[in-house]
Amino acid sequence: MAKEITPRAEDYSKWYNDIVKKAGLAESSAVRGCMVIKPLGFGIWENMKSVLDGMFKETGHVNAYFPLFIPKSFLSKEADHVEGFAKECAVVTHHRLMNNPDGPGVVVDPTAKLEEELIVRPTSETIIWNTYKDWISSYRDLPLLINQWANVVRWEMRTRPFLRTAEFLWQEGHTAHATQAEAIEEARMIHDLYAKFAEEYMAMPVIQGAKTESERFAGAIDTFTIEALMQDGKALQAGTSHFLGQNFAKAFDVKFATTENKEEYVWATSWGVSTRLVGGLIMTHSDDEGLVIPPKLAPTQVVIIPIPKPDPEIMEHADRIAAELKSYGVRVKIDKDDKKRPGFKFAQYEMEGVPVRIGIGKRDLANNIVEVARRDTKTKESIALDKVGEHVRDLMDIIQNNLLARAKAFRTEHTTTVDTYEEFKEVLAGKGGFIIAHWDGTAETEAKIKEETKASIRCISNDAVEEEGKCVYSGKPSSRRVVFAKAY
Amino acid sequence: MAKEITPRAEDYSKWYNDIVKKAGLAESSAVRGCMVIKPLGFGIWENMKSVLDGMFKETGHVNAYFPLFIPKSFLSKEADHVEGFAKECAVVTHHRLMNNPDGPGVVVDPTAKLEEELIVRPTSETIIWNTYKDWISSYRDLPLLINQWANVVRWEMRTRPFLRTAEFLWQEGHTAHATQAEAIEEARMIHDLYAKFAEEYMAMPVIQGAKTESERFAGAIDTFTIEALMQDGKALQAGTSHFLGQNFAKAFDVKFATTENKEEYVWATSWGVSTRLVGGLIMTHSDDEGLVIPPKLAPTQVVIIPIPKPDPEIMEHADRIAAELKSYGVRVKIDKDDKKRPGFKFAQYEMEGVPVRIGIGKRDLANNIVEVARRDTKTKESIALDKVGEHVRDLMDIIQNNLLARAKAFRTEHTTTVDTYEEFKEVLAGKGGFIIAHWDGTAETEAKIKEETKASIRCISNDAVEEEGKCVYSGKPSSRRVVFAKAY
Repeated sequence: MAKEITPRAEDYSKWYNDIVKKAGLAESSAVRGCMVIKPLGFGIWENMKSVLDGMFKETGHVNAYFPLFIPKSFLSKEADHVEGFAKECAVVTHHRLMNNPDGPGVVVDPTAKLEEELIVRPTSETIIWNTYKDWISSYRDLPLLINQWANVVRWEMRTRPFLRTAEFLWQEGHTAHATQAEAIEEARMIHDLYAKFAEEYMAMPVIQGAKTESERFAGAIDTFTIEALMQDGKALQAGTSHFLGQNFAKAFDVKFATTENKEEYVWATSWGVSTRLVGGLIMTHSDDEGLVIPPKLAPTQVVIIPIPKPDPEIMEHADRIAAELKSYGVRVKIDKDDKKRPGFKFAQYEMEGVPVRIGIGKRDLANNIVEVARRDTKTKESIALDKVGEHVRDLMDIIQNNLLARAKAFRTEHTTTVDTYEEFKEVLAGKGGFIIAHWDGTAETEAKIKEETKASIRCISNDAVEEEGKCVYSGKPSSRRVVFAKAY
Repeated sequence: MAKEITPRAEDYSKWYNDIVKKAGLAESSAVRGCMVIKPLGFGIWENMKSVLDGMFKETGHVNAYFPLFIPKSFLSKEADHVEGFAKECAVVTHHRLMNNPDGPGVVVDPTAKLEEELIVRPTSETIIWNTYKDWISSYRDLPLLINQWANVVRWEMRTRPFLRTAEFLWQEGHTAHATQAEAIEEARMIHDLYAKFAEEYMAMPVIQGAKTESERFAGAIDTFTIEALMQDGKALQAGTSHFLGQNFAKAFDVKFATTENKEEYVWATSWGVSTRLVGGLIMTHSDDEGLVIPPKLAPTQVVIIPIPKPDPEIMEHADRIAAELKSYGVRVKIDKDDKKRPGFKFAQYEMEGVPVRIGIGKRDLANNIVEVARRDTKTKESIALDKVGEHVRDLMDIIQNNLLARAKAFRTEHTTTVDTYEEFKEVLAGKGGFIIAHWDGTAETEAKIKEETKASIRCISNDAVEEEGKCVYSGKPSSRRVVFAKAY
C-alpha cells in the first residue's frame, strides 16, 4: 500500500495528491474544480469546526445563516470588492429547466430568466452588511458579533484538493463595532485565536503579521494573516482576519446613533478559515508512508488490532483497553474485521494517520504485554497490559507536542535572514522556506520581486523589529524586514 | 411587546409570522424566497443538528460532503427525479462577470458561458450515486452509510420562513446496500429515529407511516414519513425516509460483486430533515405571548434576572445559582444589563421562549427565596434559595414532559375517525386535524378528495389495523383506514 505513494523528495505535488487519494481524504467530482470530501477528510474538518466554534462562542460570538445567493448589484457597491470577486464567480441566471423540445434530456427554460442575476457567494460581506443595515440603529445594537459556517464558490481556474477548490467550506465572521479601536482589537483578537488554534490543535506553527496593500482582502483596510510553512519550503496562508474600516458601512449605508446621539458609520471586521486548513495539516505532518494527524484533530486517535485475528481472549482485553481509553476521552476503535491480515491493517492505519496503534497478540498476552506503535515516530514499544491505558492516554499529548516541535524545528531550519538579492535568490532556489529581508515598502518592488522569483511578501510580521536597512532589491532605505516566500 | 403578536385565534398564519419576527428567529432577505436565519433560530437548529448527528453516528453513519452543483445531464438520468425537480431549480450558466461597457456596475460576461449548465442541488441523489459508482465494486464495500449536512435550493414560488424557503438547510443520508431487505430495514430504522427525535427532543408527537404513490419522493419506491399536527389543525410533514430500490443504481450503473461473485445492482435509501423542523417546533408549542421551546432544544434554558438591577449581593447569588445549574449541564444566562427594566426583560424572554426565568429581588433575598417562572404554564413559585438549583434542574424534564403531554392531548382531540364524506368535510371545516378514514386505494379518489377539500393523505399509518370498510368518497371496498389532513 505505502509503495503507491510518490516520495516527497521525488515530486512533492504528486506526493500530496497521492496522500489525499490513498488515505481517502477527498477526490475530484464530476463538477470542475469541486471536490468530494470523503469521510476521513470530513472527520478532520468536523473536529476543526468543533474546536473553532467553541473558541468563537467563548469570545462572545454567535452563529447565524445568510443566503447562498447575492444579487449581482450588491457586489458592485464596494469598488475593490467587486474588482476582487467578479471575475471568478458562479452566476445563476434562470430558475427552471424544461423538457428538451428537440430531443431527450432537459434544457434551460428561456422564459424563466431572473430579472437580476444571482451570484453564488464567494464571501458574504455584501449580503450581510445589507442585512446589518436593519439590525443596527444605535450604539446599543453594537457590537454585533456573528459567525457563519457555510460553503462558498470562487471559480478558480487551477484547483487542488483542499488547497484551492471552486467550492469550499469555511467560517466567516462578520462583526460591527462603534469605534475604530474596538474593530481593530476584534480583528487582532481573532488573528491571535487563529494562531492559537493552528499551534495548539493543528501542531502547525505560524507567523502572524499584516499583509501588504497588494495582498490585502478586496475591501479591507488591513488584513492580518497566519502563515504556515509546508515541507516543500512553500508558505500557506492559513487564515485571515480583516479590519474593514467603514468601507462596507458606507457602501450599504449602515449608521448608528452614538451615546452623544450623533450619526456615525459602523466599523467592521471579517475573518475566515476554510477547508484549506485540512491541506495545511496534511502538508505539515505527513510522510512518505501516508497521512499523519495530530491526536487532537484525529477522528480516530487509537486503533486496536487483534493479531492474527479476533478471538474471545484477545477481544476481552481489547474491549477492556478500549473502555479505559474511552473513559479518558480518547477516540478509540477496535478493528474486528477477520478477513484482512494484520499486516494489511497496519499499512491501512499508517496510511490514514491514526496516531497510535495497539497490537494485541496471543504470544504477547502470555507475557502480559501488548505492542504500542506510534505513527509520528514509527517506533514500537512493548507495554505491560495493566499500564497500556494510561501509557496510551499520555501518548496523546506526547505525540501532539512532538509534532509541533518537529514542525517548529523544520521552520527554524527553513527561515533565513538575507541581506542581498543574490542570497535571496540562492536560498529560494535551494532550501526555500521563509526569507527575512528588507523591502523598500513600494508595490513596484514587491511586484518585481514576485515576477522575477515567484516569491511574495507573506506578511509584515508582528515580531519584526525596527532596524535600519536597505531593500534587497532596490537598495532604498527600509525600517524593518518582512517575510518572503513562495506560496500556495 | 407581547401585544404586538396577532392572537392565534384571529389569524394563525399572521401569528406565525409575528412569532418568527418578534422572537428574532429569521427574516426575509434581499434574495427572493431566501431567509436570514438569526442567532436564536440558528441556535435551535444547531441543537437539533447536534442531537441528530449523534444519533446518526451511533447507528453507524459517517458524514461526508458532496458538491453544491449538479451537472444538468445528471438530473435527467432518473426519469421521476427530473420530473420532480427540474421545474424549480437555480441554474448556473456563467462563471464570470465583467464591467458593464454601457454604464456603471457589472454584467454577465457572455464569453464565460459554461459548456454544460449546473444546477444548484435540490437534493443530492444524482451527484452522490455518480460518486458511489467508483466507491462500490464488491459486497465488501457495502453497506455504505453516509450523511451530509448541507444547503439545498428549490425555487418555490410561495415561501414561508422555515416551512418553505428557496434555500434551506438540511441533512441528507444516502446509503447503499447489498440486499433489498437491508435497505428497507435502514429506511425504517431512520424513520423510527426521526420519530424518536421528534417526540423526545422536540416534544412533538408524530404519526409514522408510508406515503401513497402520488405523495412519494421523486424516484422512490417507498417513502416513510413522520407527520406532526400544528395548532391550527394542519399537518406538517416533518421528515421522510425513502427506500429507493435500485432506481439510482440503475440510472448511474452502480453494481457490485456478490459473495457468490455475481454482478447485481446496489439497493439504496435516502432520508432527510431540514430547517422546516424549526417551523414545526414553533407551531407545536408557542402561544400568543411568543415562542415556547422545549428545554432539550432551547439555546438558553434558564435566564436569571436581577430585580430591579444587578448589585453585588444579588450578583453573588445569581453567580452561585448559575454555577450550580451549569454543573448539572443546564444552559443558563444571567442578564446583567442595567439599562433595561425587569418588566421589559420578562417580556423579552417570554417572547424568546426561554423555558425558566429566575427573578432575584432584594426583598425576596431577605426571606431567602427567589421567584421561579415557567414559560410553558406561565406559573410562578417562590423557591428557597438553597433549593433553587435542584428545583430548576428538575424543571427541565418536567417542562419537556409537559410540552409533549400537551401536544399529545391536542392531537388526540384533533384526530377524528369518520365513516362518511359528509363527516369528513364537516370535521375539516370545523376543528380540522387528522381524519382517519377509509380510502379505496386509487390515485383518482385521492386527487378528487384533495381537489374538493384540500385535504391530502398524509400517510398510511404504521398503526393502521386491517379492517373491512368502504371508501368515504367512492364507497368502494377498503381494507384499512388512512390519515387525511390539510397540510403545510
